[in-house]
This record gives sequence, C-alpha cells and structure tokens, in this order.
Amino acid sequence: MANSPSGESVVHRFVRIVEAFDGDHPTLSAAELARRSGLPSSTTYRLVEELLTESLLDREGQRLRLGTRLWELVSRGSKVLGLREAALPFMEDVQSIVGHHTALGILDQNDVLYIERIGSNTSTINITRVAGRLPIHATSSGLLLTAFGPSERQNIFLARRHPPLTDMTVTDPDDLRRLLAEIRRTGYCVQSGTIVPESAGVAVPVFNADGAAIAALSVVIPREGAPVQKSITALQTAARGISRALGWDGTLRDAIRRSL
Amino acid sequence: MANSPSGESVVHRFVRIVEAFDGDHPTLSAAELARRSGLPSSTTYRLVEELLTESLLDREGQRLRLGTRLWELVSRGSKVLGLREAALPFMEDVQSIVGHHTALGILDQNDVLYIERIGSNTSTINITRVAGRLPIHATSSGLLLTAFGPSERQNIFLARRHPPLTDMTVTDPDDLRRLLAEIRRTGYCVQSGTIVPESAGVAVPVFNADGAAIAALSVVIPREGAPVQKSITALQTAARGISRALGWDGTLRDAIRRSL
Repeated sequence: MANSPSGESVVHRFVRIVEAFDGDHPTLSAAELARRSGLPSSTTYRLVEELLTESLLDREGQRLRLGTRLWELVSRGSKVLGLREAALPFMEDVQSIVGHHTALGILDQNDVLYIERIGSNTSTINITRVAGRLPIHATSSGLLLTAFGPSERQNIFLARRHPPLTDMTVTDPDDLRRLLAEIRRTGYCVQSGTIVPESAGVAVPVFNADGAAIAALSVVIPREGAPVQKSITALQTAARGISRALGWDGTLRDAIRRSL
Repeated sequence: MANSPSGESVVHRFVRIVEAFDGDHPTLSAAELARRSGLPSSTTYRLVEELLTESLLDREGQRLRLGTRLWELVSRGSKVLGLREAALPFMEDVQSIVGHHTALGILDQNDVLYIERIGSNTSTINITRVAGRLPIHATSSGLLLTAFGPSERQNIFLARRHPPLTDMTVTDPDDLRRLLAEIRRTGYCVQSGTIVPESAGVAVPVFNADGAAIAALSVVIPREGAPVQKSITALQTAARGISRALGWDGTLRDAIRRSL
C-alpha cells in the first residue's frame, strides 16, 4: 500500500528527505533536496507538497527547511526531552564549577549520541554537537556506558574493529577489555587526546529508577593542566542529582554490582 | 501513490501516529496507539512495523515510543536547535539573576510555542513546557511578538475572538490594540495573572540579522512582590546578547521603527 514501484516505503523516503537537512544544510531548494536525498525529482516534489501540507516542512522564500511543527511533535513525546530537562540544571552546575563544555550522551547503535551540550566561549576545543554522534571507543562517554552496560553489549563491542582517530585512541581488544574493567571499578572514565590531541574527556554514569546507566554526563577539558580530579568530583556530584531526579534510589554500589 | 483508499496520505497518517505520543503518554501499546491516533488497527500495525524498521519508533518491552533516531534526525536540521543553542547561555544568566523560570518562545499559527525553558524548584508556578503551546493573547510572549510583527498579522490577531483564561486576560479588541501600541513603545510586555492568578509574565524581543523579532525571551515571576523592573533589565540585557549571537547589528531603534 505504502510502497512505490521501487519497493521503497513512503516512510523510508520521508527519512531520506529529513536526513538531507542538517546543521550545515538547514535550508535546501527542492532541486538540492532531490540531489541530497537521492530520490527522483518527481518523487521529491510530490512528497515535498505533502510534507508542506502537514507543516513537516516549512517554506522560506524559495527554500525549504524542516518544519517547526515537526520539531514540536517529535519533542513533545520524546524520552530525550525528559532526560535533558532533568539534567540541564545539574549540567549548568558542572559548567559553572569546571568552566568547560558539559555534555549528556546516550548509546545508540555503535555511537554516542549527544542529546545536550552546554558551554562557553572560553571552553576548550569540543567537536560534540547536540544531536551529533561520535564513535564509542574514542569517547569517555561511550566507553563508560559500555562498561556499565550489559555484558552481551560489551562482548559485541570488543569483537568489533575500532579504527584510531588519533595515536592516543585505544583500539586493541585486550587494552579495551582492561579499560572497561577499570571504568567499572573506579566509576568514571578519563580519555586524553583520543579524539583531538588537545582535549581530554571525563565521563560518569547517570542511573534511572531501575539502576541502569542510561546516560553519560561528561566534560571536555584541555589536556594541558587538565582539572581531572575536580571534573570527576563535580560530575559525580551532579550525576547523583540527575539520577535522583529520574527516580534512582541512590544505591550506587548495587547498580554497579549489577553490571559487573 | 502514497494515498490509502480513504484518500489520506501516508504522511498524514504518520503525523497522527506521532501526535498520539506526548509528555503524558510517552509510551503506548499498539492498541492504545490505534485508539489515540484514530486510525484502523490494521493500518496502525502496518505503519508501526515500517516505523520500527526505520527506527522512527522504538520498542520498549510490549510498548512503543518515539525513536531516538527520529529526535536526532529532526533536531539536527531544525532551526529551533540553532536558536535555542544561541539563547541557552543567556537564559542561564537571566535565571541566575531573576531566580525564576526563563523561557524562549516563537509564534506558530495562533499560539506561542515554547522552544526552551529553564528554571529551578524554587521558581513560581509556570505552566509552560518545552514544545508546549499557549494562546497568544494571554501571554506576555505572544503579545510582544504580535506587537513587533508585521501589521497584517496584528490585524488578523485583532479580528479574532479571544476567550479569557482568567478575569485578568485582556480580550477586548480596543484594549488589545492599545496594549500592542504600548508594547512597541516600551519594548517589553508585562502581563499579570492572565494565565494563572498567581503569576506574571515579562517578555522582550530577540532579533535576527534582519532586525526581525523572531523570538520572545520571558520570565514567569510571582505576582506578589514581583521583581518586574529587575526582570525587564535582565531580559533586555540577555536578549541583546542572544540577538547579537544571531547576527543582529544592534540597531534596536531601527528594528522597532520598522515594525511601527
């Protein structure tokens, strides 16, 4: 019913249309949209008309952009919104104490997906973006969430090949296995220069009411003179506040034990 | 091609599915989803399978929720993200100075749509939510953006009937016209008890690079002993910072004059 002659569903074509827009391409002409989505022009134009009718796309002069209505619909029902609303005041506390970019990330497939980030102009280099992704093995947040996650996920992670991003990125399976064990033991993850040589990341877990580590609270700090211990303390304090706001009962040791 | 026998497009059915989820209904069973969307069960189940395939819905045990992938796709390309990222540090400044809920709203159709909100547990009553809507005539943000908007939009607004939310809500067209003129003259809007009797709202405009008032920065403060003047000063200072971050060149007087 919903399939084109090519067998591709309307839902899949919708995804290709939405995917064509991003931070570097917030507006597109219909022709650019056809090119970037890889859909035939006629298909694109027809779908664009439907999406405009439903306000899922907005017109801005001769150009198109994702509709405010689309953002509203998706935000209202998304679990991301509740998590970031609970976290935001505590993230401000960390940013104020540590003085560098503070981020909240979750695992999604083979990546860390950053759902919130706050920072200032004086913060160090940070390539994370809200709704941006980074590979698990190169980030403090990704390694932390893998270490605190189910053992099946750890085994799948360790069986994969991990390309280095810098010469500091840990890629050897045995080294990664030792690293995960250390993270579970200490309760935090510090990674220095694994994404860009100038910066280090520090991450700690945020727990939900079931004691599962559902998000990583992290800071990106300069490697030179990095305030590592201060960052760990501020992050751990704030992460307890976020976890409590999510219904966690404070049994950190049990939560960690469950994942050991 | 994309239409069902009932003539309703797949895109429209997708909207009805997504609309069924909100803050009070973050997860739904397939049966609940069919009921809330008003779609036939068979249509719902088929579409749910397609949406799961594309990760636009996620399964959580026997229940469904909006997919993290959907949030990511929509957030990456949305103009809302850029606006709220520019505004967030300045909103924190206002929250820190005034000590009450600070919000960022835009006009969408006949409503104010709140795209960001920060606050603390000690803040006064505030019924705004991120991705929530309130009627234009009852809110300081809605009246402010109408006052600073094109005159055609003002005339359409003044021609509509406006139901009162409390006995303080301004509904008379002549009173509203005078109120809009006063807002343009002073550059801010204060509304007391127009949504709930206990609270007052204060809003000021945020300008883009073209000098258009594209968003309202606001606080909700208690009516008793309300720090109105302090709120106006903090909001106006922060709104200039946000506007500058959006490329505004600082010609406030011209921007206001253009809309007079």
